[in-house]
Amino acid sequence: MISQLIEKIQKTKAPICVGLDPMLSYVPEHLVKKSLTEFGETLEGAAEAIWQFNKEIIDATYDLIPAVKPQIAMYEQFGLEGLRVYAKTVDYCQEKGLLVIGDVKRGDIGSTSTAYAMGHIGSVQVGSKKLHGFHTEFITVNPYLGTDGVKPFVDVCNAEDKGIFVLVKTSNPSSGEFQDKQIDGTPLYELVAEKVVEWGQQSMDGNYSNVGAVVGATYPEMSRILRKKMPNTYFLVPGYGAQGGTAEDLKYCFNEDGLGAIVNSSRGIIAAYKKEPYAKFGAEHFGEASRQAVLDMVADINSVL
Amino acid sequence: MISQLIEKIQKTKAPICVGLDPMLSYVPEHLVKKSLTEFGETLEGAAEAIWQFNKEIIDATYDLIPAVKPQIAMYEQFGLEGLRVYAKTVDYCQEKGLLVIGDVKRGDIGSTSTAYAMGHIGSVQVGSKKLHGFHTEFITVNPYLGTDGVKPFVDVCNAEDKGIFVLVKTSNPSSGEFQDKQIDGTPLYELVAEKVVEWGQQSMDGNYSNVGAVVGATYPEMSRILRKKMPNTYFLVPGYGAQGGTAEDLKYCFNEDGLGAIVNSSRGIIAAYKKEPYAKFGAEHFGEASRQAVLDMVADINSVL
Repeated sequence: MISQLIEKIQKTKAPICVGLDPMLSYVPEHLVKKSLTEFGETLEGAAEAIWQFNKEIIDATYDLIPAVKPQIAMYEQFGLEGLRVYAKTVDYCQEKGLLVIGDVKRGDIGSTSTAYAMGHIGSVQVGSKKLHGFHTEFITVNPYLGTDGVKPFVDVCNAEDKGIFVLVKTSNPSSGEFQDKQIDGTPLYELVAEKVVEWGQQSMDGNYSNVGAVVGATYPEMSRILRKKMPNTYFLVPGYGAQGGTAEDLKYCFNEDGLGAIVNSSRGIIAAYKKEPYAKFGAEHFGEASRQAVLDMVADINSVL
Repeated sequence: MISQLIEKIQKTKAPICVGLDPMLSYVPEHLVKKSLTEFGETLEGAAEAIWQFNKEIIDATYDLIPAVKPQIAMYEQFGLEGLRVYAKTVDYCQEKGLLVIGDVKRGDIGSTSTAYAMGHIGSVQVGSKKLHGFHTEFITVNPYLGTDGVKPFVDVCNAEDKGIFVLVKTSNPSSGEFQDKQIDGTPLYELVAEKVVEWGQQSMDGNYSNVGAVVGATYPEMSRILRKKMPNTYFLVPGYGAQGGTAEDLKYCFNEDGLGAIVNSSRGIIAAYKKEPYAKFGAEHFGEASRQAVLDMVADINSVL
C-alpha cells in the first residue's frame, strides 16, 4: 500500500495530507444553522453539518493532494451519528481517488488489536461473506502494549495490502514525558523506532514498508535522528502549522530522494477561512480558502526539499 | 464516580466485572443462525447475533455483579452496526443497574483527547443542547502521549463525575517490551504509575480517585509494588482466567480493606459454556453457564481476600 501512497505523492507533487478533524466550531455558521434547522439540535444535526463541511473541503482540494487523514475522535464525539459521517467521509474521499489514513490510534492486547485491524483496514467473516466495517487504506497505531499488540495490524497489512503508522514521537507538548525517557542512554521513542523498523521488515512494499511511523514536526532534532535510523520507514508528520512546526523543521523528515514523509495539516487547512491570510475568502467560501491554504502549504514544503 | 463503583462492589460482594467482548465465534450457533437468517450474512446480522448473546449474559448475571466492561474493538470490527450494538449494550446494562467501563483505550494530543472524553464519558454542545455520544461511567485511557493527552479525560471526570483507568502495566505477554524498560533504575510502568497518582489527586472521590489504573493479573510481583505506590488508586485488573492470572496472583492488587481492585474476566465468563466445567449446561443454556462461572469466580477471588 505504501507504494500507492508514494505514487500519488509523486503525481500530485504534494507530500501532504489534509487532516479532516472537524470541530463543530470550525464549521461556518451558515452550514451549522442549515443543518440544525433541518435536523434539530441533535447529534444528527451536528453530524450533518460536519458532513457538509467535509464535502466542500474535499471537493475544493482533492485534485491537489494524495491523501486525507480524518481524526476519528472528532466524529466519535457525536456517537453513532458522527461515526456514520466518518464512514461517509471515507467513502467519499475514496470515490474522489484519495487514500485515507484513519487517525484512530488503536492498540490493545493481541486478540483485541486483531479486531481493530479487521474493523479498520481488514475484513470480518460473517457466514460465507467477508465484510468491511470501516475501510481506510491506513490507520495509526499506539505501540504501548508492545509487539503482540502491533503484530495483528502488520498481519492485516500483509493480508490486505494496507498500511499503518505507529506512534513513535508525537507532536504534543508533553510527548517527552514518557517518550523521551532515557533507557541506557537511548530515549524510549528510539527503542520504539527500532521495533517499528523490525515490524516493518515484515511488510516491505518496494523501498518502503507498509509499517510507517508518526513523527511530530515539532521536534526537528529528533526527526533528524529518526530519519537516519529508519531509512525505509515512511513518516506521517503531524504538527505543521497550527501546532507550531515550520517547513524548515520538516526537512529532516525527508530522505534525500525527496520521499519518506507525508506532512499533515488539519486546522491550518480546514479552518483556513478563519485566519489571515485566508479570511478574505469569507465564511461562505471556506472551501476556496482551504484550497489556497493547500497550495501555499505544498509550496512551502517543496521549498525546503 | 469511583465511590459509586465501590458501593456496588460492597453490595454485591463481587469485586469483578464481566468483559462483554463478544467474538462471533463465542456466540452459540443457534443464535448466529437465527440472526443471519433474519438479517442475512451482513454486518447487521452479525451485530444482532452479538446483541442477543450479550442480552442473555447480562440477564443471567446482572444481579451478581457491580459492573461490565465491554471491549469496544469487538463491536467496532463490525463497523457502524457493531457500534450500534455497543451503544445498545451500554444502555441495557445501565437500565439493569450496572456501571459500564468502556474499554476503549483512547488517548491522543490534548484537543483530540477532549473529543474522545466528551464522546465517551462527557457530552457535546450542539446549539443550546448538551448531548451524549456514547455514555459509559468509565473508560480506559492510553498514557503514551503524556499529561496533555490524559488531562482532558481527568477534566471530564471532574465535570461529569465519571472515571477512567489509565494503562500502567498491561496483561499481555509482550507488555514488558516498553513498559518494563528501566529508566534510572525504575521501570517505565512505575513512572506511569507516579503520573497516574499525580493526575488522580486532581479527582479524588472519597478515599479513592476517579483516575484508576489498569494493572494486569499476569504480573503479580509488579502489582504488589504498584499497590504500595498507589494506595488511593483503584486497579482494573485484566488477565484473570483465560489469560492465565489466578486468584492467588490477584491478592496483591487489593488493599488491606479488601478494596482497591476490580477484576475482569471476559472469555472465562461469556464463553464459559464452551469449556469444562460449564460445558454441561450446553450451548442452549450459555447464560446459565456464564452465571455459574461468575459465582465461581467471585468465590475464587473472595477466597484470597
